[in-house]
Amino acid sequence: MENKWVRENERIDDLQVKGLKIIQNPNGFCFGIDAVLLANFSIVKRGAKVVDLGTGTGIIPLLIAGKSRAAQVTGIEIQEEVAKMAQRSVFMNGLEDRVSVLHKDLKETLSCFEKQTIDVVTSNPPYMPAGKGLTNPGDKKAISRHEITCTLDDVVRTAKDLLKIGGQFFMIHRPNRLVDILASCRAHKLEPKRIRFVHPHADKRPNMVLVHCVKGGKPEVQVLEPLVVYKADGTYTDEIHAIYGRESIEPTPGGRR
Amino acid sequence: MENKWVRENERIDDLQVKGLKIIQNPNGFCFGIDAVLLANFSIVKRGAKVVDLGTGTGIIPLLIAGKSRAAQVTGIEIQEEVAKMAQRSVFMNGLEDRVSVLHKDLKETLSCFEKQTIDVVTSNPPYMPAGKGLTNPGDKKAISRHEITCTLDDVVRTAKDLLKIGGQFFMIHRPNRLVDILASCRAHKLEPKRIRFVHPHADKRPNMVLVHCVKGGKPEVQVLEPLVVYKADGTYTDEIHAIYGRESIEPTPGGRR
Repeated sequence: MENKWVRENERIDDLQVKGLKIIQNPNGFCFGIDAVLLANFSIVKRGAKVVDLGTGTGIIPLLIAGKSRAAQVTGIEIQEEVAKMAQRSVFMNGLEDRVSVLHKDLKETLSCFEKQTIDVVTSNPPYMPAGKGLTNPGDKKAISRHEITCTLDDVVRTAKDLLKIGGQFFMIHRPNRLVDILASCRAHKLEPKRIRFVHPHADKRPNMVLVHCVKGGKPEVQVLEPLVVYKADGTYTDEIHAIYGRESIEPTPGGRR
Repeated sequence: MENKWVRENERIDDLQVKGLKIIQNPNGFCFGIDAVLLANFSIVKRGAKVVDLGTGTGIIPLLIAGKSRAAQVTGIEIQEEVAKMAQRSVFMNGLEDRVSVLHKDLKETLSCFEKQTIDVVTSNPPYMPAGKGLTNPGDKKAISRHEITCTLDDVVRTAKDLLKIGGQFFMIHRPNRLVDILASCRAHKLEPKRIRFVHPHADKRPNMVLVHCVKGGKPEVQVLEPLVVYKADGTYTDEIHAIYGRESIEPTPGGRR
């Protein structure tokens, strides 16, 4: 019955959250654990207007719509084919009243919204500077992973332009970019207020970092307790199980991590 | 025999490192675990010239002299009485050929050294902004804890002026100042290259952060594995035992933490 939603090479994955499902193309970029952690980390109040910059499959808008009472969640995606697939996921879940995906360069997001009218901006942007270890800039996965079409600073500036004073910005990124992230956020008046590092194991270096900024917030940040993904025996920690829901979804092997 | 070194209200503590001893005044500011962690975190090559900004009891110069083959280690301390006590600790340990303590405002350190001639700068500066929870600004402990006589930015700027290009800056501070720290270091061309958070327990928020910057370094930072102080049973972890040496010294109860 759901087959009417999928195109060639696509498949439907069950998100195990409120019965949500998502369309992915295993040859393209599939969502990873980072998107799930970011959706979980973000705080979205009832009635909020939310924008997700560089939404890809639409995973973050879908999860936020599922977990919150946000009034309106909009994903922005520069790749037309990917944006259309994400919009089909929205219809497939019957969420078209609250969620939409726009095919748009995130640097042009302001053409779709009034300045400073958004409550929450989320982003799981490309992690790597353009050029670094890059083989094929035209590749769809490369656009999701490298700063080809937008830089970290573009993402932060766009978030700043969209957000109301006091609005919230949630991002997941790589710890090796931490100084760039914090410097860019502060420069754009998105003051970092909470930081949480994600460690594959308790005694290992973090491989992801969650950052929560408040537009116009005062300086002073809380660094939270480590978020640990795996126990020593290689199974998920209780916290990860709780985030994924009872029957955990394994992140797609082709996913970002 | 060693009593000739101590004045009224002072006492001698054994550092358990290479037979080093230190004079402290339990009514004043005694060193805490942070100084020991910073000395351990710092990388000091043979023949290096080292300056410790805001040296207090002289704990960091003594530990660095003990663990490295630094040619010259200078502590800078604004409180005359404290600087004199630290200098007596240097004599008591017979380290006066390699270690000295200057009674000086750290903002005037450049009057004692040629610009850009130092290999390593360390600092365990006051953690709290002036005014925040401050009762008596004339109090000696207050000067060690609050930014009364120098701000974080003063410390970083002084480190930048002292260091050679490629020189190393090591600091311990509080995680709630992380954005201030990283922004200030980058603004002064001391690029953060390694960051390590210190957690009282593995599943708790960090209460200290170690930062290693390189003057003129390229952007990209390593966030290291957590440094955990206590095991679940309340005893020191193996790493802390290793840092303190076999017979661990308990940090002074009157110390900073």
